[in-house]
Amino acid sequence: MNLGMSDRVAPLVERVRDMVENEIAPLDHEYHAEIGRHPSGDRFQMTDRQYEILATLKATARERGLWNFWLTDSSRGYGLTTVEYAYLAEEMGKVGIAAEVFNCSAPDTGNMEVFERYGSDAHRQKWLARLLEGEIRSAYVMTEPGVASSDATQIALSARRDGGDYVLNGEKYWASGAGDPRCKVMIVMAATDPDGPKHARHSMFVVPRDAAGIETVRPMQVFGNDDAPHGHMHLKFKDVRVPAEDLILGEGRGFEVAQGRLGPGRIHHCMRAIGQAEKALELMCRRAVSRTAFGKPIAELGANYDIIANARMEIEMARLLCLKAAYMMDTVGTRQAQPWISQIKVVAPLMACKVVDEAMQIHGATGISQDTPLYQMYHKLRTLRFADGPDAVHRRQVARAELKRYTNQKAAE
Amino acid sequence: MNLGMSDRVAPLVERVRDMVENEIAPLDHEYHAEIGRHPSGDRFQMTDRQYEILATLKATARERGLWNFWLTDSSRGYGLTTVEYAYLAEEMGKVGIAAEVFNCSAPDTGNMEVFERYGSDAHRQKWLARLLEGEIRSAYVMTEPGVASSDATQIALSARRDGGDYVLNGEKYWASGAGDPRCKVMIVMAATDPDGPKHARHSMFVVPRDAAGIETVRPMQVFGNDDAPHGHMHLKFKDVRVPAEDLILGEGRGFEVAQGRLGPGRIHHCMRAIGQAEKALELMCRRAVSRTAFGKPIAELGANYDIIANARMEIEMARLLCLKAAYMMDTVGTRQAQPWISQIKVVAPLMACKVVDEAMQIHGATGISQDTPLYQMYHKLRTLRFADGPDAVHRRQVARAELKRYTNQKAAE
Amino acid sequence: MNLGMSDRVAPLVERVRDMVENEIAPLDHEYHAEIGRHPSGDRFQMTDRQYEILATLKATARERGLWNFWLTDSSRGYGLTTVEYAYLAEEMGKVGIAAEVFNCSAPDTGNMEVFERYGSDAHRQKWLARLLEGEIRSAYVMTEPGVASSDATQIALSARRDGGDYVLNGEKYWASGAGDPRCKVMIVMAATDPDGPKHARHSMFVVPRDAAGIETVRPMQVFGNDDAPHGHMHLKFKDVRVPAEDLILGEGRGFEVAQGRLGPGRIHHCMRAIGQAEKALELMCRRAVSRTAFGKPIAELGANYDIIANARMEIEMARLLCLKAAYMMDTVGTRQAQPWISQIKVVAPLMACKVVDEAMQIHGATGISQDTPLYQMYHKLRTLRFADGPDAVHRRQVARAELKRYTNQKAAE
Amino acid sequence: MNLGMSDRVAPLVERVRDMVENEIAPLDHEYHAEIGRHPSGDRFQMTDRQYEILATLKATARERGLWNFWLTDSSRGYGLTTVEYAYLAEEMGKVGIAAEVFNCSAPDTGNMEVFERYGSDAHRQKWLARLLEGEIRSAYVMTEPGVASSDATQIALSARRDGGDYVLNGEKYWASGAGDPRCKVMIVMAATDPDGPKHARHSMFVVPRDAAGIETVRPMQVFGNDDAPHGHMHLKFKDVRVPAEDLILGEGRGFEVAQGRLGPGRIHHCMRAIGQAEKALELMCRRAVSRTAFGKPIAELGANYDIIANARMEIEMARLLCLKAAYMMDTVGTRQAQPWISQIKVVAPLMACKVVDEAMQIHGATGISQDTPLYQMYHKLRTLRFADGPDAVHRRQVARAELKRYTNQKAAE
Repeated sequence: MNLGMSDRVAPLVERVRDMVENEIAPLDHEYHAEIGRHPSGDRFQMTDRQYEILATLKATARERGLWNFWLTDSSRGYGLTTVEYAYLAEEMGKVGIAAEVFNCSAPDTGNMEVFERYGSDAHRQKWLARLLEGEIRSAYVMTEPGVASSDATQIALSARRDGGDYVLNGEKYWASGAGDPRCKVMIVMAATDPDGPKHARHSMFVVPRDAAGIETVRPMQVFGNDDAPHGHMHLKFKDVRVPAEDLILGEGRGFEVAQGRLGPGRIHHCMRAIGQAEKALELMCRRAVSRTAFGKPIAELGANYDIIANARMEIEMARLLCLKAAYMMDTVGTRQAQPWISQIKVVAPLMACKVVDEAMQIHGATGISQDTPLYQMYHKLRTLRFADGPDAVHRRQVARAELKRYTNQKAAE
Repeated sequence: MNLGMSDRVAPLVERVRDMVENEIAPLDHEYHAEIGRHPSGDRFQMTDRQYEILATLKATARERGLWNFWLTDSSRGYGLTTVEYAYLAEEMGKVGIAAEVFNCSAPDTGNMEVFERYGSDAHRQKWLARLLEGEIRSAYVMTEPGVASSDATQIALSARRDGGDYVLNGEKYWASGAGDPRCKVMIVMAATDPDGPKHARHSMFVVPRDAAGIETVRPMQVFGNDDAPHGHMHLKFKDVRVPAEDLILGEGRGFEVAQGRLGPGRIHHCMRAIGQAEKALELMCRRAVSRTAFGKPIAELGANYDIIANARMEIEMARLLCLKAAYMMDTVGTRQAQPWISQIKVVAPLMACKVVDEAMQIHGATGISQDTPLYQMYHKLRTLRFADGPDAVHRRQVARAELKRYTNQKAAE
Repeated sequence: MNLGMSDRVAPLVERVRDMVENEIAPLDHEYHAEIGRHPSGDRFQMTDRQYEILATLKATARERGLWNFWLTDSSRGYGLTTVEYAYLAEEMGKVGIAAEVFNCSAPDTGNMEVFERYGSDAHRQKWLARLLEGEIRSAYVMTEPGVASSDATQIALSARRDGGDYVLNGEKYWASGAGDPRCKVMIVMAATDPDGPKHARHSMFVVPRDAAGIETVRPMQVFGNDDAPHGHMHLKFKDVRVPAEDLILGEGRGFEVAQGRLGPGRIHHCMRAIGQAEKALELMCRRAVSRTAFGKPIAELGANYDIIANARMEIEMARLLCLKAAYMMDTVGTRQAQPWISQIKVVAPLMACKVVDEAMQIHGATGISQDTPLYQMYHKLRTLRFADGPDAVHRRQVARAELKRYTNQKAAE
Repeated sequence: MNLGMSDRVAPLVERVRDMVENEIAPLDHEYHAEIGRHPSGDRFQMTDRQYEILATLKATARERGLWNFWLTDSSRGYGLTTVEYAYLAEEMGKVGIAAEVFNCSAPDTGNMEVFERYGSDAHRQKWLARLLEGEIRSAYVMTEPGVASSDATQIALSARRDGGDYVLNGEKYWASGAGDPRCKVMIVMAATDPDGPKHARHSMFVVPRDAAGIETVRPMQVFGNDDAPHGHMHLKFKDVRVPAEDLILGEGRGFEVAQGRLGPGRIHHCMRAIGQAEKALELMCRRAVSRTAFGKPIAELGANYDIIANARMEIEMARLLCLKAAYMMDTVGTRQAQPWISQIKVVAPLMACKVVDEAMQIHGATGISQDTPLYQMYHKLRTLRFADGPDAVHRRQVARAELKRYTNQKAAE
């Protein structure tokens, strides 16, 4: 169980870290300052400068071969293992736009996996190719306002067969990335057989972002922030026609696609969350040694040593668990690795939220202000406790896997 | 130690609750929707509708005698005890603008106390009268970007005597309420004798908001929100001249004024925090009984019973502690009640943050979105863990009070 | 809601505290040292010195009128309110044998309440009188090895009617106090109608400790300690005949008796737990100011200020919650006060375990050794998290009470 | 960073696990039942049956080559890495006497390391050889009643040079293993130059257990248990003469020896702690699926799924951290691995205490009784939070290592 940085990936990590710190971080600030400055006043339009920042950085990354690291067991990707990718993703997590610069950002990576593994040739030509180039972006559309997402069997947006098409009607929200003007395609979960067996009710469709009948109701806000231009959109589907060819895998196989997609997606989020926690600890320490009160650096006051030590220990443990989950994916496959993925999905965001919160507190009110990146980290990390399944659902998975050994044993007696 | 609702205050609580729920809550939503709609585009200008909402509600409150409850042991106020006020403040905490409607909002109440107890007749005529009428608003200006607020003896904004004036130079931030167009006066802490004995270096000044030389650098943001039009402003003082008559109590007495002001201010925040926690628990329960997953109300799933029970127990205990601190203020005075005030200042915001966080989690992503008031509560409550002293400083106070008994005993041996 | 110490009870508290500290504490040590020194080698026999210690202290307490405080609303008792009793019980909790010295110890108080409220005249003459005198002791026998106590409807010890008698067969354990050689009577829960409606299956019987057919299997140990001579006994009932007159209230009314008994019993435990936490905090502070490391009192090292402050705040809150639960019992009755009793039943032992654990840690290894009373406190407090219902059951009660308001509302819509 | 089970160690782990479960566990129970049955009544004498149990098991282990795994980088040992040893130690942690059966128990392993690395040839011949054979046992004697162990520079037992001897005077306690009748030698820390520089005051001596002048004051108890016959003894040294040849390494090098000894010792404790947590989780799950309440297995009630999932996640993370610390020891050496050893020393006992506590709670009162091994685990694990340095000291080490990077950087600016 080699969880260390391989010789192959070590120089890549070095180069990614260097580019993130020295080239992306300075522009990230400018990119965010541009939000809302489009002449139209529309926060979900990008300014020329935003396009330019991303284009330049992406071109640099591609030139250097720092591109598409995520497609871990495909000939199209870099051929990295998930463990190797973890080290890269952690670095990318430290700065807002970094993951996109390397074409490794959600929800695109997950969607590309869907096209790669489950899509038709047509899907791969039309959408995957452009996504792999970083030309367009995509969205993944599952959550609905009317139902508890913890029980996805309740998803209600209906897809009714009509001739060679399916006709989609209903509402979705938290469609992350659907606000981006470059978002061209969405993968949409819909009920094709609402009265069928629980896990065969749903199917997955490929839908162009500009398909007729899709109305953008509003951007969902995260703690009062709209996360423009990326956005988490609330959408209404009104008689949206999707050709039958754009049904993925076949009717009733929505859960199969979702599971295949969500495993890697979940762990990628966690890898980046660990990077954020690491960044927050760095900020905490820098503050603690440079700020003084009562004649001492604040590091030496109150429980601050304990707070710093706890943060270090919790990050260290979460990283190791993340690497183990990655290792399991590499060796026994995503399905068998599920309990570990669930574990890290619970652990990483909670740990990172806590470290960021402590970092805030050590900064005083500066810690929740625009003068540190901590609040943006907090928003992302807090959201992550719902995204791809709330903590409670994942704890349930872990417990069931744990208990199974004993119930099987009992049953066999 | 009667901590219950007195016969005198019970009908007032009933009337305040009723007005908050039925009259203020509906308009609160509209008030917030108006933010940023001023024709100038300036978020720190209020729209006509905003003025109207506040004016109408305030007039109603005054007419009904629901006004200025907070001035607890003054002939100008209602004559309530702090315990009685706690029950009212809790209700006001449940809706954003409610406290202001009853002229009981921070930082005005604290500032009015300063004018009442430490101000000159001129101050009382010029500022206190209009504040008591709810005509103008005020700010309290202490925190500085360059120094750790936990050690207020480091405050550096300088006030140099020059003839009949003091001349103020330096920077302040987190001046809450200084963004409000109706804010007319500020109470400002400045160093008059920076090399003097630690607690005699500072003095407190009354400064008009529009005094020459005060520049508004920017609004500080709380988790990306500017809290307009109220605002937490970053201000630059450049040769701001303040007549010596506007020095409060005398040179070197800044800490005396600050302590007298902050005791009640701190507990008022806590009372409202408890109201917010109570509101969050209500939302949590309503969600838990009305939303279903896996064929059951989510109340019955996972650890939700425990989460709800823990929230109830923690609110109950925090409220009782708050009432006891209030009782101590009523009976032994603010100074002697200090350890209890510090206790509740640590407990209430932490508890309320936790309850709100759990309420968010039970709501799913809705819980962090604009569809519930939870995120606004969270911002306020998280800020409260810094405002008027960070948790660490208050824990220190509590521990020192506790240990004193034994060190005194040892010394006496 | 007067939660303070009444004028009536204040001098009693003073006298109890004084006697506990100055007269009982020194002998408590000797009493415990005597355990296991009976010539027979039987740890469940008391030595002459043990009898003498208890007899002398009890006589003193009676003479001074410090006796039977607990029978809160009966003419036989002191006529105290539950709130008043709370202040006394807290003091008694601080030293091992103190509660018994004042004839206020479990399980006798609860059993006396049963005789007082539900017993026959014969029961009162035969058992209650001698218990009120402190001559004999008693046990309450409910828990069984074979069933989860959280669901008491499963209790299986059978009581079959046979002529004028009931015949009891089955096993019980954790019969606290049944090891004491002075224990003469037990109140035993048994199934009279195991297939009846859930809450009417059980009945409560008065059974002499020496009834034929009761075998003492073994003492249950608490963390390896047998708590002799009090003991938590494992008993076997083999054709134990109980005359029908010793059935309390009537067949099927076991739960009614249990509920009436357990409410006050639970809160008495909590009151004493708070006394123990208070004692542990005192020990923690004394150690923190008297022991040095790295040239400073350990109070000033690491997170110790925070640990002490947290302990103070948590004790303060738990005490207030306990007093409120007591107040509810005094004003609305035990049944209506149930949610508050459940709250404090969860809060007090958990809080006290935590404070004791922190006190241990500040003491270094001394904290878990025989050189402090902390480990005995820990054993009692940890046991309390099971006694009279585990935490989970009480949280469930609290949550149900909380949710009821909203489900009722929903049902009414 | 290969943290997995190597091919070399995997079959050893299998054989150790098998022997622990099937051969040691059944006899462990009998061994403990024998405690106190020595005809003399002395709990610190072993019965014939106890000798027999250990002798038989040890002989079996040796025959199978399951012996002395711990001497990780010496020609005398098995030649395992620390990572490999971790997997073995975890299995041995699951049952009380298992570690000794494989000659891998504290404090002998640490003491053997001292003899091996720092001892003279004479020490190795006289003591090490017999310890490696498992013929005798040993103790490590550092802690003193009068001083806070967190600051070992305060250690006061004096060693005064007198001719060819040192003369030792003072008191020690918590000398673990010094109660065992087979304990023949002790390594004792003493002050040779109490006014010298802080870390050069102390020296380490080899002292026969039966040296003249050593009085056994009493066994220290852990939560009321004397842990006989092993014991944690309180010893008085009165003019104990030690030949100068039995000074280890030289005067003033006591800290050097202690650090060299404690690094591996600490992590071995942690490895076994993880085994205990794993065992506790197994017991928790078995109880949860086999016990019913309210018509369901208790696994499905309340927060039990969450409790089980949290236990699994915390064990998983602690194990990985332990393996990483082991890996650092293997690759960069004990000294450089210090921050990781401190991390796991904080994490493992706290985690394991928590898991055991939850396991207790799920068992109901059975969980703290003699009917499960949980209470013995709890005692050991709680002790471990003091042994070889309390949590606070290790957190301090971790924080200092973390902050150093930034202070160095600041200093360099």
